[in-house]
Amino acid sequence: MRILHIGTRPTYRAGVSLTEQITGIARAAKGASRTLAQLTAEERDQALVAMAAALESETSALLEANVLDLGVGRELGLSTAMLDRLTLNPERILAMARGVREVAMLPNPVGRILDERIRPNGLRLQKVSTPIGVVVIIYESRPNVTADAASLCFKTGNATILRGGKEALNSNRLIARLMVDAGRQVLGDRFPETAIQVIPTTDREAVPILLSLTSLVDLCMPRGGEGLIRAVTECSKVPVIKHYKGVCHIYVDREADLDMADTILWNAKVQRPSACNAAETVLVDRPVAAAFLPRAARHLAEKQVELRVDPDSMALLKDLGPEGPVLRAATEQDYATEYNDYILNVRVVDGVDAAIEHIHRHGSAHSDAIITRNESTARNFLQGVDSAAVYWNASTRFTDGGEFGMGAEIGISTDKVGARGPMGLDELCSYKWLGWGTGQIRA
Amino acid sequence: MRILHIGTRPTYRAGVSLTEQITGIARAAKGASRTLAQLTAEERDQALVAMAAALESETSALLEANVLDLGVGRELGLSTAMLDRLTLNPERILAMARGVREVAMLPNPVGRILDERIRPNGLRLQKVSTPIGVVVIIYESRPNVTADAASLCFKTGNATILRGGKEALNSNRLIARLMVDAGRQVLGDRFPETAIQVIPTTDREAVPILLSLTSLVDLCMPRGGEGLIRAVTECSKVPVIKHYKGVCHIYVDREADLDMADTILWNAKVQRPSACNAAETVLVDRPVAAAFLPRAARHLAEKQVELRVDPDSMALLKDLGPEGPVLRAATEQDYATEYNDYILNVRVVDGVDAAIEHIHRHGSAHSDAIITRNESTARNFLQGVDSAAVYWNASTRFTDGGEFGMGAEIGISTDKVGARGPMGLDELCSYKWLGWGTGQIRA
Repeated sequence: MRILHIGTRPTYRAGVSLTEQITGIARAAKGASRTLAQLTAEERDQALVAMAAALESETSALLEANVLDLGVGRELGLSTAMLDRLTLNPERILAMARGVREVAMLPNPVGRILDERIRPNGLRLQKVSTPIGVVVIIYESRPNVTADAASLCFKTGNATILRGGKEALNSNRLIARLMVDAGRQVLGDRFPETAIQVIPTTDREAVPILLSLTSLVDLCMPRGGEGLIRAVTECSKVPVIKHYKGVCHIYVDREADLDMADTILWNAKVQRPSACNAAETVLVDRPVAAAFLPRAARHLAEKQVELRVDPDSMALLKDLGPEGPVLRAATEQDYATEYNDYILNVRVVDGVDAAIEHIHRHGSAHSDAIITRNESTARNFLQGVDSAAVYWNASTRFTDGGEFGMGAEIGISTDKVGARGPMGLDELCSYKWLGWGTGQIRA
Repeated sequence: MRILHIGTRPTYRAGVSLTEQITGIARAAKGASRTLAQLTAEERDQALVAMAAALESETSALLEANVLDLGVGRELGLSTAMLDRLTLNPERILAMARGVREVAMLPNPVGRILDERIRPNGLRLQKVSTPIGVVVIIYESRPNVTADAASLCFKTGNATILRGGKEALNSNRLIARLMVDAGRQVLGDRFPETAIQVIPTTDREAVPILLSLTSLVDLCMPRGGEGLIRAVTECSKVPVIKHYKGVCHIYVDREADLDMADTILWNAKVQRPSACNAAETVLVDRPVAAAFLPRAARHLAEKQVELRVDPDSMALLKDLGPEGPVLRAATEQDYATEYNDYILNVRVVDGVDAAIEHIHRHGSAHSDAIITRNESTARNFLQGVDSAAVYWNASTRFTDGGEFGMGAEIGISTDKVGARGPMGLDELCSYKWLGWGTGQIRA
């Protein structure tokens, strides 16, 4: 067990069992959530603005903490890409602070009246948005997620327990510390010390302990690779909203505008291949396969996109010559893989129903698009595909809190319960029913 | 392992492992959910009406199956009360059929547009209600829950896997069989054979296997006692919405109308003590304790309500004489107990904040009420109490899908994610985002 202490108030104490300490953290978060529920929207926003300023003014301390983490990262043998994700620099710190300030500017998500009805007996019922309570966020390398997640959870009145990558502990703890201190400077004791906590140990056992505390923890959101999501889902007894992989599809229908299809496929694959809403597979309707595939392949070859193809596509693509793409035969496993890279599966299908069938069998229910001029075919696809976001004549890359106008995003849910698709502030809220009576009793 | 076969199509097969069989059931449900998503609202309602008629016309077969179950129940040594809950009679079968018919009459919950926005790039986004997919319901004795739950899930386009009490297997399987056959008579193959399935074995291992199938099962709702809920939460890897106990409170504030408080407390405690929204504890503000408690105690004594009291209440109540109630000293455990009986905890507190503190420490976040004339105190309570339903001057007994105007109820969620409070048809739906484009790509 590796324990690091940053600042003057280490929360991890020797001689106390891990279970007791983790339970203490969760209990403190629950207590904090009661206090946070009493803050006004104005108070929350004032605190957020102060947090942003604190992150900016403590740039050198943050860089120092981050240097420690980079040392740990190199010791652990992290790849250059991973070390880059872990790195803070003045620019990234400014961006982090700007993000927190933007959250302060968003409309207040708590206390919205979602529904209202007056019953025949005169009882007025209001469904009102509330904080969820205690939210656990589990994530990987990037320290900026700490400020992002903490600010979104705080904006919604939730207490947060953060568990980042073990190599980012120093950066994460200092970010949380600065945010809490800034909040307390503005609001005093109305801002609880334990509103934002980073688990102060890298012990792997901490997570299963935390996620067994059903009376203290209200929600867990894991963000990261497949292994992380699976491990959290396996061990958690508290509700989990998963941000699982995106195996997204573009289906080019026989009645597609092929120029549009080419443009959208290019955008969905190469504009940012590392995004979860990037396309991994193009399905092409047989009648347009010969017209579409060679041109799309030549276009994608400009970015050296490797194509993993079914036999029908192979026949159409194998003789493109030096302008053609790198080709490999696709395996069953390929169809279910999120590459996050310049690789694309290609398959010829017989019509929209076969496309839907493929998507249900191999996809991850994230984002899928149909390109067609035929509205009836499009409606069939939109209704039939059981994914968080389904598009007609648009790129799958739009599945994003910002693009959806949510202002901010804590992740993209591939679950169907709690939230689905991009999760903004509204999706970080629960609700309760208020009953305004004048003495009503049940008959 | 006890396996019973009802009807001509037993689904449990010898020589195949339990894991394979349960996985087969879940996979069949997932397949059915795809087909169900294609049905129109009219088709679903036609099928429901036919199901209701089938339950009515097969009364004698249902009674026969139920006799088998009652035999099993007696063998298992069930109490008279439990046997009564297990019993079907012509009246109960009619009520069950009427319930299914009422579900058919409710408005269609699927395909509602929950949100709509046009982005600056012209992309139109619609948030549309959809079925969840495959819903598992785990419950105890009453066979009528089978028809209730199956009809609500079917109305929302979900495939259902039902697991009732082991003593009700014959009744449950026949109810499901009749509903499926009726659906197929009306809709043919558009109504999948596996839309409604009862797990055909009483093997305890079936549940953990089923609830590990995260790619096939979308939601589990356990309904029943604390032990059942805990067991399901412990083992489930799929999302669970819990219908946990109701430890509900009435807080009588110093500015309460004491006549109203007396009437509401009486209603909340004795109108139906077995309901989860019945009150288990009354908290009385110190300034009105002497005026309120003796009169309330005398009133409740008419129904032989036993009072479990704190020392302050004991002092006020111990000398009421023959008209007084049965008194016992309350324990910490009592404050967290759902009695479902003519028993009430009584405690004197110092003001609304102490009441909120007690409710958070001992309650189950179900339903709580304040009785006061002071609006500011009431708002403090409504905002401060973190429960699914919070009332001002009304009985906790209103927390109910019917009373909330939802038309039907599959349960009352004490969770904060997915649904909270009464769950009607809307709460059995998920949603997806539809993006209507004209060639939009991400910049």
